[in-house]
Amino acid sequence: MIRAAIIGAAGYTGGELLRLLRYHPHVGEQHIVAVSTSHAGKHVSHAHPDLVDSSVVFVSEFAAADVVFLCVGHGKAAAWLAEHPLPVSTRVIDLSMDHRLDPAWMYGLPEANRSDIASATRVANPGCFATTIELALLPLRGMLEGNVYVTALTGSTGAGQAPSDTTHYSWRANNVSVYKAFDHQHLPEIAATVGYQNIVFVPMRGSWTRGILASTVVTLANPIDGLRARFNEVYADHPFTHVVEDLPDVKRVVGTNNCCIGMQQQGDQVLIVSVIDNLLKGASGQAVQNMNIMFGLDETSGLHLHPVAY
Amino acid sequence: MIRAAIIGAAGYTGGELLRLLRYHPHVGEQHIVAVSTSHAGKHVSHAHPDLVDSSVVFVSEFAAADVVFLCVGHGKAAAWLAEHPLPVSTRVIDLSMDHRLDPAWMYGLPEANRSDIASATRVANPGCFATTIELALLPLRGMLEGNVYVTALTGSTGAGQAPSDTTHYSWRANNVSVYKAFDHQHLPEIAATVGYQNIVFVPMRGSWTRGILASTVVTLANPIDGLRARFNEVYADHPFTHVVEDLPDVKRVVGTNNCCIGMQQQGDQVLIVSVIDNLLKGASGQAVQNMNIMFGLDETSGLHLHPVAY
Amino acid sequence: MIRAAIIGAAGYTGGELLRLLRYHPHVGEQHIVAVSTSHAGKHVSHAHPDLVDSSVVFVSEFAAADVVFLCVGHGKAAAWLAEHPLPVSTRVIDLSMDHRLDPAWMYGLPEANRSDIASATRVANPGCFATTIELALLPLRGMLEGNVYVTALTGSTGAGQAPSDTTHYSWRANNVSVYKAFDHQHLPEIAATVGYQNIVFVPMRGSWTRGILASTVVTLANPIDGLRARFNEVYADHPFTHVVEDLPDVKRVVGTNNCCIGMQQQGDQVLIVSVIDNLLKGASGQAVQNMNIMFGLDETSGLHLHPVAY
Amino acid sequence: MIRAAIIGAAGYTGGELLRLLRYHPHVGEQHIVAVSTSHAGKHVSHAHPDLVDSSVVFVSEFAAADVVFLCVGHGKAAAWLAEHPLPVSTRVIDLSMDHRLDPAWMYGLPEANRSDIASATRVANPGCFATTIELALLPLRGMLEGNVYVTALTGSTGAGQAPSDTTHYSWRANNVSVYKAFDHQHLPEIAATVGYQNIVFVPMRGSWTRGILASTVVTLANPIDGLRARFNEVYADHPFTHVVEDLPDVKRVVGTNNCCIGMQQQGDQVLIVSVIDNLLKGASGQAVQNMNIMFGLDETSGLHLHPVAY
Repeated sequence: MIRAAIIGAAGYTGGELLRLLRYHPHVGEQHIVAVSTSHAGKHVSHAHPDLVDSSVVFVSEFAAADVVFLCVGHGKAAAWLAEHPLPVSTRVIDLSMDHRLDPAWMYGLPEANRSDIASATRVANPGCFATTIELALLPLRGMLEGNVYVTALTGSTGAGQAPSDTTHYSWRANNVSVYKAFDHQHLPEIAATVGYQNIVFVPMRGSWTRGILASTVVTLANPIDGLRARFNEVYADHPFTHVVEDLPDVKRVVGTNNCCIGMQQQGDQVLIVSVIDNLLKGASGQAVQNMNIMFGLDETSGLHLHPVAY
Repeated sequence: MIRAAIIGAAGYTGGELLRLLRYHPHVGEQHIVAVSTSHAGKHVSHAHPDLVDSSVVFVSEFAAADVVFLCVGHGKAAAWLAEHPLPVSTRVIDLSMDHRLDPAWMYGLPEANRSDIASATRVANPGCFATTIELALLPLRGMLEGNVYVTALTGSTGAGQAPSDTTHYSWRANNVSVYKAFDHQHLPEIAATVGYQNIVFVPMRGSWTRGILASTVVTLANPIDGLRARFNEVYADHPFTHVVEDLPDVKRVVGTNNCCIGMQQQGDQVLIVSVIDNLLKGASGQAVQNMNIMFGLDETSGLHLHPVAY
Repeated sequence: MIRAAIIGAAGYTGGELLRLLRYHPHVGEQHIVAVSTSHAGKHVSHAHPDLVDSSVVFVSEFAAADVVFLCVGHGKAAAWLAEHPLPVSTRVIDLSMDHRLDPAWMYGLPEANRSDIASATRVANPGCFATTIELALLPLRGMLEGNVYVTALTGSTGAGQAPSDTTHYSWRANNVSVYKAFDHQHLPEIAATVGYQNIVFVPMRGSWTRGILASTVVTLANPIDGLRARFNEVYADHPFTHVVEDLPDVKRVVGTNNCCIGMQQQGDQVLIVSVIDNLLKGASGQAVQNMNIMFGLDETSGLHLHPVAY
Repeated sequence: MIRAAIIGAAGYTGGELLRLLRYHPHVGEQHIVAVSTSHAGKHVSHAHPDLVDSSVVFVSEFAAADVVFLCVGHGKAAAWLAEHPLPVSTRVIDLSMDHRLDPAWMYGLPEANRSDIASATRVANPGCFATTIELALLPLRGMLEGNVYVTALTGSTGAGQAPSDTTHYSWRANNVSVYKAFDHQHLPEIAATVGYQNIVFVPMRGSWTRGILASTVVTLANPIDGLRARFNEVYADHPFTHVVEDLPDVKRVVGTNNCCIGMQQQGDQVLIVSVIDNLLKGASGQAVQNMNIMFGLDETSGLHLHPVAY
């Protein structure tokens, strides 16, 4: 069994890791170390009331573990590591932005880097928008021309747990809005992963809780037939990324670690629609997927999830 | 024209008063004094971005007015009056709880007290839950027996503007929950208005922004035929309270100053369903209705509103 | 392994069974017979697009199976059985209303009838409202007096798949409404299960998709201390029913087979709030729980679900 | 006073016209002819339950009127006119698509054609997406280069009243999806109005009822300073179209006839965000605005609406 520590276990991504690892066949509740300074000593249901049937209690301090998941805020993951020197053999999966462009870390997108992840001990888990957009663009590496135009919408859990004006129900319900146009913080990791700089990205806040839909329009340098076949080929042996016949709606993947991708072509313009659950494939689910790869397990272990469907 | 001051004009109920009074035929934008200490000197769209086409600017200090609307928090209305002694002739309409049980003030439910409101200069505007429940029970005064069982649900604007755990979109979306069971603060004014004490009240938070639905089940001391006729008679000359043939859904009145009431009887048990928009008939709309009555205007002046409908 | 047939596998409850049984340790995709006359020959993702990674294809005809789940409409389950005589050893779990009051069938509420379910081959799965309300009342058998007042709210999946006026998004969004007051079709099974007739039930439609919250107010014949202890004792060895310290919101259980129950007492009045996911503990999850019991498996097999949480 | 006939008064846009015209200072309830074949003889609240306080009854047949609003489906407006020859002096405003590209009709976008509308008797009311996108692009006529990339999201009322799979609450709630990518039926009228063909349009369905947000990214042939000033100048004397400092969210205009436009520039790329209420500025509100212009009234008559705000 794998002993897994979650640093920042009272937050959104920490809570999702708890929900996944407690039923993971190689972890289980008794091998979870749920670290939370704010909730130390309390039952996990104090922060995550749905976990009423859990036996896990938050602890204040990290002790030894086989894998450490860093679920603390951006900037704090590097600080935590500085304060907690780990044996080189301990696997670390950082869900924050801190190491995604750091050459000493492996970028944890299995569809791009699976074999390197398998041998890595330091993995930087991709951003949620980044995952959605990279999976739409990876099969088009070397085929792009001009600007790539991306509009992507995220639910309220993308904004974190602290209440704010833009997560207030009275404002966000029945609403949609643009934010961070042109300069979202995920652009550098996207550019690095797909090898293309000219990405015009308009992020939006949607009126739902879970899920990201990215609508990506690209100009092909040389329009080709068989674009869908190319996507199918690239993702053939990746168990969570699925090319679909239509353009997927976001709820199709909510509650799962899946990414669904559909496309439509008109002349040299191609629309790619990709959808994920931002807390699963966009965060904690992908972190478990990376853990599975790093420990040589079946990539889907512990990720046979019940879709929300409705 | 009537010069109207709104104390606390940057909040929810203050904003609704702005939206109503700017087009009121006896007020209009140039006769509004929008007092806000937090936003003084700024255009009203800083707090209420929908008011982009307004000419009103928040001011820091109250000056003279024909009517003063107190839209400050509970407890602060009395304090404001203590600091701002007003001529006795100035009409004051207090939307807070501070004076609802104060015998020196008139309780501003027109369906109960219209003629007394007409001659009053100090009116305590009823609470939103209180309005919904009182209008369901007023026609049954003297006919009740045993406990009255009320379940009422409110939208997120009932909780005010400050972000909190229970107004966070990630929690409130797709959710429903009970709060303040048995001891909601509106119970005393309801008991006083309908002359009945045995009210078992279970309030709930709903996943919408505007609107209250109250489901009230009463036991009749002597079951009667013609209950609907009795309701119709009581509300015949009240322009905003309508008895309907079915049981109304809450969206039927959102965006209006209306209350719709439906009922269903089975033996000695009667279900009354009443619905209002908590910010209009439950707050600012009723405040304008009271102003109209106090100034001898048509009761519906400025309240010919466009329902949201969908 | 258990060979499981789902009759009506393209509907809501049939789809949920697919989602559960494909990962059930004693079933799995290769042992599912997904019968759908409307979708025969098509991949399950035609009806359930989230099941993109499944290998199951709908079939037109039932063949032999160890357990048959009837997910057809009310009235059609009895008709299906008449047309398909089954060996007495085949377990049948009927999710429709057809046999809930039939003495030849066992009523499938494990918290009430677990040992009888274990030896039954014909189990009538309880209604969704019925489950929520019965679990609130079971520990109070013999303690009730006068009327029991229940208000319960359900999401749109409770209304089935066929589009209608009351499931149209433009109407249902941001809305709440009462329907079938006093005479909901689940009342007889509730009365039979809790042994009490005087239940005044006001059902409501809520603006969400999954989940039921029931608010039940009872009068105790003899008010007692230790009410929570009594609930805890009754449900101590039932793995899905949890007594909680507060009054639970509905989203706490969405995506799980759990029921959470909270309570609050004031004199002889007791409020019990119970919540379930109507498609899981209220339908397909409970059906799998019953299957587990009938086959002597761990009651929680295949029901270690990921809560939606947000 | 103006006698106004609404053909198809039981539908969404017909209902909105009822809500607007009943309080219009030059129309009023007694001058409305509400034609509905399906609801003839019934009170308008049968189709529009919020209109509980109306005196209007649906009629089966059109008689004479000063202005006729055609609120019937696409294709049916031309058919209706063929069956009902009208005096040339009768003003006709067609809310369907039937005459938007017909040179015998004036395209009813006041910001583009106000003076021509004033002298027209046949006005084709623009589409809802078309209005939102045209108002974003009009000030840029002659400045565009390459493709214009538009992503626009609409609420469920954009899909009409008939229940369907994509308006079913269980599917649409918490969801977002792309439809009619590249070939939405509004593209021809947009191209004709803004004088530019290369528009790549990705429409989306949002999880709300009212409102459209369009995100339009253009490449400027010659990037200029003072872009906002140009927009301000173009819309200076148009009372409903407002240039704002930030990027507007859609709820800012819901319930009003306003369009708010914000913009952000980066090099030769300009993002323009425009928002309207699809049933008001995108349909019935703009129809009343056109009526006002055609009859020489104040353009804002009857359109002083209460924003939904929350």
